[in-house]
Amino acid sequence: MSNKLTGVFAPVVTPFKADLSPDFELYLQHCQWLLQQGAGLAVFGTNSEANSLTTTERMDLLDRLVQHGVDSGRMLPGTGCCTIQDTVELSRHATVHGCAGVLMLPPFFYKGVTDDGLFDYYSEVIERVALQDLRVYLYHIPAFSGVPISLALIERLIRRYPQQVAGIKDSSGDWQNIEAMLTNFPDFAIFPASESFLTRAMPLGASGCISATINVNPAAISRLCTGWRTDGAVQQQQELDTVRKIFQSYPMIAALKFAISHYRDHPSWQIQRPPLSALAADKKSALIAALDAAGFSMPGLLER
Amino acid sequence: MSNKLTGVFAPVVTPFKADLSPDFELYLQHCQWLLQQGAGLAVFGTNSEANSLTTTERMDLLDRLVQHGVDSGRMLPGTGCCTIQDTVELSRHATVHGCAGVLMLPPFFYKGVTDDGLFDYYSEVIERVALQDLRVYLYHIPAFSGVPISLALIERLIRRYPQQVAGIKDSSGDWQNIEAMLTNFPDFAIFPASESFLTRAMPLGASGCISATINVNPAAISRLCTGWRTDGAVQQQQELDTVRKIFQSYPMIAALKFAISHYRDHPSWQIQRPPLSALAADKKSALIAALDAAGFSMPGLLER
Repeated sequence: MSNKLTGVFAPVVTPFKADLSPDFELYLQHCQWLLQQGAGLAVFGTNSEANSLTTTERMDLLDRLVQHGVDSGRMLPGTGCCTIQDTVELSRHATVHGCAGVLMLPPFFYKGVTDDGLFDYYSEVIERVALQDLRVYLYHIPAFSGVPISLALIERLIRRYPQQVAGIKDSSGDWQNIEAMLTNFPDFAIFPASESFLTRAMPLGASGCISATINVNPAAISRLCTGWRTDGAVQQQQELDTVRKIFQSYPMIAALKFAISHYRDHPSWQIQRPPLSALAADKKSALIAALDAAGFSMPGLLER
Repeated sequence: MSNKLTGVFAPVVTPFKADLSPDFELYLQHCQWLLQQGAGLAVFGTNSEANSLTTTERMDLLDRLVQHGVDSGRMLPGTGCCTIQDTVELSRHATVHGCAGVLMLPPFFYKGVTDDGLFDYYSEVIERVALQDLRVYLYHIPAFSGVPISLALIERLIRRYPQQVAGIKDSSGDWQNIEAMLTNFPDFAIFPASESFLTRAMPLGASGCISATINVNPAAISRLCTGWRTDGAVQQQQELDTVRKIFQSYPMIAALKFAISHYRDHPSWQIQRPPLSALAADKKSALIAALDAAGFSMPGLLER
């Protein structure tokens, strides 16, 4: 169990320029700030608009982060695509860079696929990546993928690839599923997708969480992840939940990006790639008013 | 209305070798046979396992078909990906090849996107392709994409891009939606995704159909598409429906591929890329027995 990956990882939101190309300067700053605040980097996740990035763009961004000294050992890049080859290419690339692991969506276009078919997909990917250091974190997000990862599939994959299949992010929001995984797979690194589960999940052996709001609230979420045994934990959990609920009242990525643009005074942070859109004008002041009322703020990037 | 694309188009199933690479020789034969039987080629559709092919593989297959003399004017390649750039690259490639049009899935990972967001996505693609000859056929397949194409979105796109936005494939199976489109957009090329709608949709101005079973039953479906006014149409419709219902009792792609492998005596036709799987062994004889009982057969490829 001591080998399990632990901590909080932000599905890092991706800033764009007006021409919709990634804004690397803003991206690097945000990644450095998240690391300073105690969070790891689940780059290229759902909240990163990764599915609106090409494979080439993802590899280029990762290359440049590493070139700029960002620690790949604290990264968990999303690599799951619809095709075996794209998933293999991204997963090899991340593994060769020394990333802690890869967060792998199932192939998400075809629906109603069988566990046999998904097992074959993951097997093909793992065999073709063919690297001992590959660590796969499965990604259960049925509301977007339409392709759930069943407990039976997890069990088969762990049995066949005990080294490579290392953990899972569960974005179902279903506590019973999280609890069942924690009970059935004690050596598996299990990351609920919300900090709201921290005080319930950590005592049962969860690894931490990979949550959208770590993009804006990393220090407090990280503190509870390590300090869930302390006296203040219940109070801390309530405070985290309050902030999270505010963001959840809006389209999540748009709200995160607007909050960052507001606290960093950088309007271009709002840009999203279609089909996603920036936060509607009439919702911006309401979001900031609610965050102000909750006493929320985002500290700046420390000079090094 | 005379400019509307018409006819029946097969979402051409893609044969694979044992190493899961496309089997071009079998593919070319199947495309040539479909054309001989009166069908056009909607290559890289849902039933083509196109979402399990990389963009490079799709462009390579199209290049090779054209090099082997297959008429690009009778092709309608699927080009819709999750990213703007991939969709642009495939759409440009198909348009430069002289394809009749492109069948464009909406970006299908993010759910609950707005019509504004989808309008912006299609606009970005059309502006970036920047070719007068581009003809976009929208692809409404909510059960797989999770991203429906609303009537209001169609209206906005036609108004903004009257030349480029030429038609739609409707895979909803919802007759009311098909009827509403036929009524509201008389100059739009509307292709229901099933031949079962032919005798209802053609009198209202439908363009034909783009249907999975055209892969195995092209001549009869093509005949009804042109002959829906003739006396035998009701009987023909019933016969088409009988065959379609047999295939619909099984996982569609697996059933199509097994039928082709059976009638062509070519076992490798059964291979599918994970996460999809070949037809289960116990269902194979039942499928063929049902097709035999319906008097179904697949004529061979004519020598030229």
